[in-house]
Amino acid sequence: MKKLINDPQDVLKDALLGVEAAHPQLRVDHVNRIIYRANPKADGKVALLSGGGSGHEPLHGGFVGVGMLDAACAGEVFTSPTPDQMQEATKVIDRGAGVLHIVKNYTGDVMNFEMAGELAGAEGVEVATVVTDDDVAVQDSTWTAGRRGVGVTVLLEKIVGAAAEEGRDLAAVTALANKVNESGRSMGMALTSCTVPAAGKPTFELPDDMMEIGVGIHGEPGRHRVPLAGAHEIAEQLVEPILHDLDFTGAPSIVMLNGMGASPLIELYLMYGEVARLLDKAGVKVARSLVGNYITSLDMAGCSVTVLKADDEILKLWDAPVNTSGLRWGL
Amino acid sequence: MKKLINDPQDVLKDALLGVEAAHPQLRVDHVNRIIYRANPKADGKVALLSGGGSGHEPLHGGFVGVGMLDAACAGEVFTSPTPDQMQEATKVIDRGAGVLHIVKNYTGDVMNFEMAGELAGAEGVEVATVVTDDDVAVQDSTWTAGRRGVGVTVLLEKIVGAAAEEGRDLAAVTALANKVNESGRSMGMALTSCTVPAAGKPTFELPDDMMEIGVGIHGEPGRHRVPLAGAHEIAEQLVEPILHDLDFTGAPSIVMLNGMGASPLIELYLMYGEVARLLDKAGVKVARSLVGNYITSLDMAGCSVTVLKADDEILKLWDAPVNTSGLRWGL
Repeated sequence: MKKLINDPQDVLKDALLGVEAAHPQLRVDHVNRIIYRANPKADGKVALLSGGGSGHEPLHGGFVGVGMLDAACAGEVFTSPTPDQMQEATKVIDRGAGVLHIVKNYTGDVMNFEMAGELAGAEGVEVATVVTDDDVAVQDSTWTAGRRGVGVTVLLEKIVGAAAEEGRDLAAVTALANKVNESGRSMGMALTSCTVPAAGKPTFELPDDMMEIGVGIHGEPGRHRVPLAGAHEIAEQLVEPILHDLDFTGAPSIVMLNGMGASPLIELYLMYGEVARLLDKAGVKVARSLVGNYITSLDMAGCSVTVLKADDEILKLWDAPVNTSGLRWGL
Repeated sequence: MKKLINDPQDVLKDALLGVEAAHPQLRVDHVNRIIYRANPKADGKVALLSGGGSGHEPLHGGFVGVGMLDAACAGEVFTSPTPDQMQEATKVIDRGAGVLHIVKNYTGDVMNFEMAGELAGAEGVEVATVVTDDDVAVQDSTWTAGRRGVGVTVLLEKIVGAAAEEGRDLAAVTALANKVNESGRSMGMALTSCTVPAAGKPTFELPDDMMEIGVGIHGEPGRHRVPLAGAHEIAEQLVEPILHDLDFTGAPSIVMLNGMGASPLIELYLMYGEVARLLDKAGVKVARSLVGNYITSLDMAGCSVTVLKADDEILKLWDAPVNTSGLRWGL
């Protein structure tokens, strides 16, 4: 295992020190492993909390800031944060208008956020929840009942973050979050496995001439293992299941070509070119796009595609100013 | 070789299609392989051109836009662009106030930009040049006479780009560029080799228990090959030579912790924490920082550190609005 780390048990602790040093606009609670905005939003606005296992950076800590999240709870690598962490963050960020929990659909995250919501609720904080489940690869998986939550989470945090910043109430923000989740689909693939530091060896074995189509962001098995192919064919294997699952014609789309962590940007742009061509051919109009590492799987080589069916309201919220370490414009 | 590509010979061509599809604010000349701003800057302002071999993305195409470069010439992977490309771009971006060529110190780039400058000069465009040479690892190397140009190039393109946007003349912009280059130092390391697509195999062999300290951005040999060590010790081996080479105390610094392409963000933040601690201990005051992939080496795992001695003027230019795919704020 070759990694830029100290003790494999200290990866999260050490990385949070770096996040704190790099970003004066954030405040890190090292005891509870929560990343907050240094300057909380105004009273009376809905607050947004997300979180999950570490190893997917910039998700979620990289999306804390004006226009997106108010806080993110960091679990150990590929391990859900605890209800205690989530409860603490929920109480701290509540500005009296309630808190939306943004939860990727993995069994541990769903269970822990549910418990945290009840605990915070008992203390008088109004909590609502959206569970993202956009991954079309598999219906159930190793770590989930139902589909996995992946790339749409990034887009949702941006769009719903802008709505909360506008001052919409908790019911409206939650309804929008559900609408965004229902309007998006994703599919990923891996050229290589990732290696969890504490495990010290690859999560799965993948021969030099094979790739995994439909892989999860923790290296969970996908749809099938197939011989290595060119970017053109890989793009088809990602785009086809997405378009098969939802009709994206007749509305503008937001498209993300996401890197899994170890694929260089030149390859991600190349893949985006292939994806854009296929979408164009299928009559899908791309209104906005993102190319880069946004929801990763440690040092996995590979990529995922997310397509979100938008409308004028969603595009306006997408374009609204945002200032996080992972997404920034207008500020 | 596992890569998200089609024919290894078409990587640059295919990637430029993706860049064009992803960024309507850019215009791509596919014949000459030049990335331009779609909306040129105003007449009477100095224009900035950079370029070099591909494989270092987002450098340089990812830094074309308001507040940074006016154009970037893309060579084949790890191969200098040609004088013809540079001459064409120089003529196109000139707004009557001259063009600054920003050149990393590699023999091919320096020679070709020099020829392009002469050719454009003969056609009436005033051209000035800055050659970056901030890498403290080695005095001469496989591909250079003198030190290699690396991370400072990113910071220089931002700072000098802001000065050109302000309307400073070519002499002033060039003087600032030289000052920035002289005020910055970098040092890099590799955990793994990169693989050039057309070569199909790793550029160099590095055993599982070794790392390369002082590596170049094309996988050129560094200072020494040493046993794998923890992040703490790696940070010392990068920071010490930088601080030994220039006194960074008594002024605010801009610090970049750059990933080589295949190291995930959680590791880069962890490394930044180590670097920040060492700088603090040495009395270096960090005023601004960047953590992420900015000047990469294809799929190499590893990182580099750049420290730039700034002043109030440089910090003001650093903070000025910028809108590129690689760096964006205030717009």
